[in-house]
Amino acid sequence: MLSRASLFRRTPQSITFRRNYFQAKFPRDERFSKLTGDDVNFFKGVLGPSGVITAEEDADGVASYNTDWMKKYKGNGSLVLRPKTTEQVSEILKYANERKLAIVPQGGNTGLVGGSVPVFDEVVLSTALMSHIEEFDDVSGVVTCQAGVVLGNLESFLHPKGYTVPLDLGAKGSCHIGGNVATNAGGLRLLRYGSLHGNVLGVEAVLADGTIIDCASTLRKDNTGYDIKQLFIGSEGTLGIITKVVLLTPPKPQAVNVAFFGLRTFEDVKKLFTRTKQELGEILSAFEFVDRGSIELVVKHSKTGARDPFGDAYPFYVLIETSGSSKEHDEEKLNTFLEKLLGEEDSLICDGTVAQQTSQIQSLWSLRESVPESLQREGAVYKYDISIPLNKFYEIVEIMRERIGDKGNVVGYGHIGDSNLHLNISSPKFDPEVYSLIEPYVYEYTSKQRGSVSAEHGIGVMKPHVLHCSKSHAAIQLMKNVKKAMDPNGILNPYKVLPTHEEEKIN
Amino acid sequence: MLSRASLFRRTPQSITFRRNYFQAKFPRDERFSKLTGDDVNFFKGVLGPSGVITAEEDADGVASYNTDWMKKYKGNGSLVLRPKTTEQVSEILKYANERKLAIVPQGGNTGLVGGSVPVFDEVVLSTALMSHIEEFDDVSGVVTCQAGVVLGNLESFLHPKGYTVPLDLGAKGSCHIGGNVATNAGGLRLLRYGSLHGNVLGVEAVLADGTIIDCASTLRKDNTGYDIKQLFIGSEGTLGIITKVVLLTPPKPQAVNVAFFGLRTFEDVKKLFTRTKQELGEILSAFEFVDRGSIELVVKHSKTGARDPFGDAYPFYVLIETSGSSKEHDEEKLNTFLEKLLGEEDSLICDGTVAQQTSQIQSLWSLRESVPESLQREGAVYKYDISIPLNKFYEIVEIMRERIGDKGNVVGYGHIGDSNLHLNISSPKFDPEVYSLIEPYVYEYTSKQRGSVSAEHGIGVMKPHVLHCSKSHAAIQLMKNVKKAMDPNGILNPYKVLPTHEEEKIN
Repeated sequence: MLSRASLFRRTPQSITFRRNYFQAKFPRDERFSKLTGDDVNFFKGVLGPSGVITAEEDADGVASYNTDWMKKYKGNGSLVLRPKTTEQVSEILKYANERKLAIVPQGGNTGLVGGSVPVFDEVVLSTALMSHIEEFDDVSGVVTCQAGVVLGNLESFLHPKGYTVPLDLGAKGSCHIGGNVATNAGGLRLLRYGSLHGNVLGVEAVLADGTIIDCASTLRKDNTGYDIKQLFIGSEGTLGIITKVVLLTPPKPQAVNVAFFGLRTFEDVKKLFTRTKQELGEILSAFEFVDRGSIELVVKHSKTGARDPFGDAYPFYVLIETSGSSKEHDEEKLNTFLEKLLGEEDSLICDGTVAQQTSQIQSLWSLRESVPESLQREGAVYKYDISIPLNKFYEIVEIMRERIGDKGNVVGYGHIGDSNLHLNISSPKFDPEVYSLIEPYVYEYTSKQRGSVSAEHGIGVMKPHVLHCSKSHAAIQLMKNVKKAMDPNGILNPYKVLPTHEEEKIN
Repeated sequence: MLSRASLFRRTPQSITFRRNYFQAKFPRDERFSKLTGDDVNFFKGVLGPSGVITAEEDADGVASYNTDWMKKYKGNGSLVLRPKTTEQVSEILKYANERKLAIVPQGGNTGLVGGSVPVFDEVVLSTALMSHIEEFDDVSGVVTCQAGVVLGNLESFLHPKGYTVPLDLGAKGSCHIGGNVATNAGGLRLLRYGSLHGNVLGVEAVLADGTIIDCASTLRKDNTGYDIKQLFIGSEGTLGIITKVVLLTPPKPQAVNVAFFGLRTFEDVKKLFTRTKQELGEILSAFEFVDRGSIELVVKHSKTGARDPFGDAYPFYVLIETSGSSKEHDEEKLNTFLEKLLGEEDSLICDGTVAQQTSQIQSLWSLRESVPESLQREGAVYKYDISIPLNKFYEIVEIMRERIGDKGNVVGYGHIGDSNLHLNISSPKFDPEVYSLIEPYVYEYTSKQRGSVSAEHGIGVMKPHVLHCSKSHAAIQLMKNVKKAMDPNGILNPYKVLPTHEEEKIN
């Protein structure tokens, strides 16, 4: 499992729409104050000069916080604050709230929906210096850490102790645990360990007015009042700034096996999923899916010599990972299962391979994980991260192929175990016609299937206008009421997540 | 696993404080209207005469909804409403909100903190007729059902399909899934499957003003805005009435094994827990704990001839359950683990037994599950459901033994895997002196350890005055703001969960 990180880091090379920075279709909210020299002096007083970066003194430094890693979103903030303690975050927000200064919290800045950079001139509050792992209980496996701990560092801390993080992301070399929680990151281990809503035991967060909400419980069970911490999980920094995270970590698996299959139909992919869950039960840790188009791109663009996995081509491919406590048992389970499958008349699988050594596991995973990077090499990429109930999971890929025709290349891959499809379309360069064939159609289709227009990437500034495709008017109204109750001046990460009145009128 | 249900049903025999009905220490809130004949007629119009029970027409019928199963809490409501649809719930609440009529939602009425019965004259809204299982997807294992489905019925529905409920409770013969979600029920499978915050994919709920919030998503991943459904999980009907639940269900285990051990010290219990997690990994489904005092009570009061499990007596006992997909593998893992333990110098375990047959499994579980019932036979029981970090887990039992002396019997048992201790003290009859030695001490102690004063039973009307022992003033204030934003007239389950101003002043 360790080896996967290096295969799929988010590097500046893999850029979508490099020269098409996102343009906000709404004006700056004039309720927010403009930053003054007095403000900067106040913040320097709280953080010391080294905790403050100003555009005046370090234009490049500030610029890097204003742009996301894809170089798709770009703001005009002139101030970056780097607190080290929760109390400093509290002092910053108390002041900002009174002065009506808008604030963008920023973790590792690895998001995909423009949630962590300013849209206009918001002040950036970075968690980069809040990187202390505070406590670990090696009986319960509960770890408490500051929001700015890098996910990969947390993993490195836990592995020698026999534990692991219940969350694995391509971005783990840069992303912060606070940002992961704030965006309810999904990733590669969700099938096995479930979502952060189940694994986060506690959160400490600071409200817009500077109030510190200490719900940093280390307990698995705590039924005392509303589970307030849940509100911060996935609210993308709009309800409060997460300063501390308490995470339940599972024992590190002793054995990992990976199998890769070729299949004829998507119907067979679904059947294989049901069978796999039944027969591999508790050791199944991933059920990933790529279509033929994706594999062709990987083979075409591979720098590491990735080859077609089988002699023949198949329309669909599935990667299964098991991770468990006994190498011998796990291999036996996997092999028995495969023998059974292959021995059946009209076998679900046409061909298959099993890897047990790290290098083999690595190359099978890379067939799945190199898809995004290979796509970038085709030109402009239109990326969609949707959940669709499994009975309709692949249909949208076929529909899009028909709509786009020869104007672009449509591929589908993703996490079958979580019903999470990554629909990707590429064209040699950004083409408004292709774009108009995709949007809003893809969102409307997803809405009709009661799917999610953002399975794991969140809403940010990219998708508030399509929130209504997955959430009812009443639910959005309730979100707005909650926002108002928690951040009456709206200073926390404005323009993100919730649609503006203008956007609602359009819909 | 099936067999456990019959061993530990919540029957009227097991009654605490039978003759000491809870007395509210606060007056009825006079902001609420008193029920009129016009109101009753309106509700009859919505539900038809068969959906309405009035004290006038059926005093006994209404009385049974006014009293909890323990006969510890008793209200004076004169009206019970039994809607069948979400729309009816919506109509009821819209009217009640406008009329300022207070409402108590009631599921199976199996709670332990008086949350589901009126405190004064609130109208009872029962989910008993909302018992339809609406949809099941046998690929994803996702089930959608109305709030009033009895937990045991849901299990019976799922088992033949190869799935099971990720929640197992002694009360499963009566409790409703809506009530389980509203109270964030914990139970016996939490160690394996995690809490309802992770397993509930969707909730449909009706707000105080009748607004239907449809967050009944069937998707594992949906990052579109705030995870509003989480607010309803564990809010005990004070933020909205849950009308529909979407649950992710795991494959039914193929094999179950149970082992029972005697140990010398609590330190050894903790060490055994760490070892067990490491060596049994993904098949560990329970790690339960009883002390010697508990076992003695079970042996003394057993009606089914339960015997001391080992020739010698030990201060501590642990029950381990595994459930997995391969009987052979699971037995091998368990046996290898036991052999290793027994072969070690200064072995952690003094004695042990392993059960594989249903009847043996049943009798080992009954040693753990008969403790509450055996306690009742000793007289009055003072029950505490707390979470304490494992390093201090058992200390409070020893402290209480010292404080109570020969005035009562103090025992401890519970879910080690979840740090959930059931501290129980019995005296021949209710004794105010014993009571004053326990409270508020036990809550203050729990607070000092950063534990939870209600691990899995909730707050209800029993514990609002000690909420501050587990939650900060700021967190309680935030809960109140959320309550106000969602239920401005406070009609939903009043007097429950949140402390009144008077209680806060005392603290």
